[in-house]
Amino acid sequence: MPVLDPAGDLLTLTRALCDIPSVSGDEAAIADAVEAALAPLPHLEVLRDGDAVVARTRLGRAQRVVVAGHVDTVPIAGNVPTWLVGEGAEAQLWGRGTVDMKGGVAIQVALAATLTEPTRDVTWVFYDHEEVEASLNGLGRIVREHPDWLACDFAVLGEPTAAGVEGGCNGTLRAEVRVAGVAAHSARSWMGVNAIHGAGEVLRRLEEYVAADVEVDGLVYREGMNAVGITGGVAGNVVPDECVVTVNYRFAPARSVEEASAHVRELFDGYDVTITDSSGGARPGLDHPAAADFAAAALAFTGGTPAPKLGWTDVARFAELGIPAVNFGPGDPVLAHKDDEHCPVAQLTLCHDALRAWLTS
Amino acid sequence: MPVLDPAGDLLTLTRALCDIPSVSGDEAAIADAVEAALAPLPHLEVLRDGDAVVARTRLGRAQRVVVAGHVDTVPIAGNVPTWLVGEGAEAQLWGRGTVDMKGGVAIQVALAATLTEPTRDVTWVFYDHEEVEASLNGLGRIVREHPDWLACDFAVLGEPTAAGVEGGCNGTLRAEVRVAGVAAHSARSWMGVNAIHGAGEVLRRLEEYVAADVEVDGLVYREGMNAVGITGGVAGNVVPDECVVTVNYRFAPARSVEEASAHVRELFDGYDVTITDSSGGARPGLDHPAAADFAAAALAFTGGTPAPKLGWTDVARFAELGIPAVNFGPGDPVLAHKDDEHCPVAQLTLCHDALRAWLTS
Repeated sequence: MPVLDPAGDLLTLTRALCDIPSVSGDEAAIADAVEAALAPLPHLEVLRDGDAVVARTRLGRAQRVVVAGHVDTVPIAGNVPTWLVGEGAEAQLWGRGTVDMKGGVAIQVALAATLTEPTRDVTWVFYDHEEVEASLNGLGRIVREHPDWLACDFAVLGEPTAAGVEGGCNGTLRAEVRVAGVAAHSARSWMGVNAIHGAGEVLRRLEEYVAADVEVDGLVYREGMNAVGITGGVAGNVVPDECVVTVNYRFAPARSVEEASAHVRELFDGYDVTITDSSGGARPGLDHPAAADFAAAALAFTGGTPAPKLGWTDVARFAELGIPAVNFGPGDPVLAHKDDEHCPVAQLTLCHDALRAWLTS
Repeated sequence: MPVLDPAGDLLTLTRALCDIPSVSGDEAAIADAVEAALAPLPHLEVLRDGDAVVARTRLGRAQRVVVAGHVDTVPIAGNVPTWLVGEGAEAQLWGRGTVDMKGGVAIQVALAATLTEPTRDVTWVFYDHEEVEASLNGLGRIVREHPDWLACDFAVLGEPTAAGVEGGCNGTLRAEVRVAGVAAHSARSWMGVNAIHGAGEVLRRLEEYVAADVEVDGLVYREGMNAVGITGGVAGNVVPDECVVTVNYRFAPARSVEEASAHVRELFDGYDVTITDSSGGARPGLDHPAAADFAAAALAFTGGTPAPKLGWTDVARFAELGIPAVNFGPGDPVLAHKDDEHCPVAQLTLCHDALRAWLTS
């Protein structure tokens, strides 16, 4: 088993974590390594569920915070083990997971091990299966099976934000818009009604759709309404009787899933619309004192102002539990899942130092 | 081996042929049965190539005509063996092949056997693999390997025409129209260009397209321009960078394949257009004396006037050889390939009698 040195150099620790392959479904080795690194420490209680590891202090502080991160990655693309490019302030760590999100995980492991007396009680959560279908998500499993493990006043998720504070997240919803026609042989096409031609109107509405910018608790969320799939046709000589456009609506956390669904149904009025999956967004919650306090402390180190998180993240699970939560971690989120995933080493240090300062202030 | 009685009752012969399963690729049994029925007859020379059988008279007549039909069918759908519905003038023969086209084949077998001294020399052609990709077509194979077997002044193809005379056929061409975009995560869709939305313009042109009616040698061919397939999208959270619309253009025999291709390219100007397959049409050729003579003789029995054939048929192969050819056979072409394929028994007799009258006049 790879042995981690949580009290050692942060870059070395990050590389060690990245170099343990942990594509979703294959997290046992990395979970074992994290558990082995933290279990011996007397200031932590370490719990395990499947390949999720939870380590928490029990100091009786007035506040408890969760700092959480997933240990799985999307599939490796020839980019494990990691390699370092550049030196000093310019150094970049390349490889799968450097952005999403073993940099954040390394910071958690390091601080869990070394902060023996944080000013707030901390529950460090390492979980599995974030990069696959939502029903498998390790954090969701803990919510269902050990909700007490997540009890807290505020949560920080170490997802990549390029060391900014990103609050809340848009919701996401997928719908199938079905256009019906009448099948016919294409040699006698006037006997049919071409469903693909009919889908032109659906695409027209998408083209003309102007996505909203929605302000929620002081942050502006940019929405998006996009066809992410289209299928139609059964054979090269048949006028098709069905064409299905799959639409993905990313909606601001000001809207509920129900409101978002109604909006999509209204946009495609006249068509058969099926909502196939949905996840509500999360309001940024930066009006909550614990969140505002964190944002102030972190941004004192990293600069900038809180921003909306564009992609859906597990902060929405905390939002559902009524817990304010933000994203804060190293790495440019645009590089997540990309083959050229890489993270500035300086951001690792910056995020580490900001979290440490907050948890000791 | 099933034994055919070509000189017996026509309905019995048709049923016997239909009841020999002969889905494309599995024509050996039916070809053997046809060959066995005709080979012993002294007025015929019988030739064989694979599962194609050719039987011809050698009477030294001034004219030679080919009467051709394919012996294969599309897959059986629980509709073999045949069954009879109704009685007398209302009787209908149900089952696979009753329309496409063992009724026509039965007429050929019966007349080949019984017309010992036709007024024109006749080459009776029974061929395989018509219902599958063009490269396997048995008639095409004879054109390549034994072109002399098809030498003639005029050809009749027994494809279903509901006992009408249908001349020539439209050409057919398939093209892929490719719309390019720029991929992005759907949470940041403004960083991409949605290729599916872009395909809206392609569908708009198809919707607005007015198909032409084109008169060729006195028959009006109705064209058609249809999307027969559309695909786009790689994942539920990705703005797709490609959408491909597959278009089928059925074009009047006044246009060459090159002209038809140019027309499609012009319609989709601005897009990447790939012609994936094409087959030229066939002019009706009814201005040719042999064809006009046949049409007059056949329609004296069946009524009506010559009409254009809407689907592509092997008459186009004869057209390529410079031989005028028409379709004439029992059964409603709209029922071809349908699970409820069925043919009026009266049309079997009508087509049989019309062909016999022409070949003895």
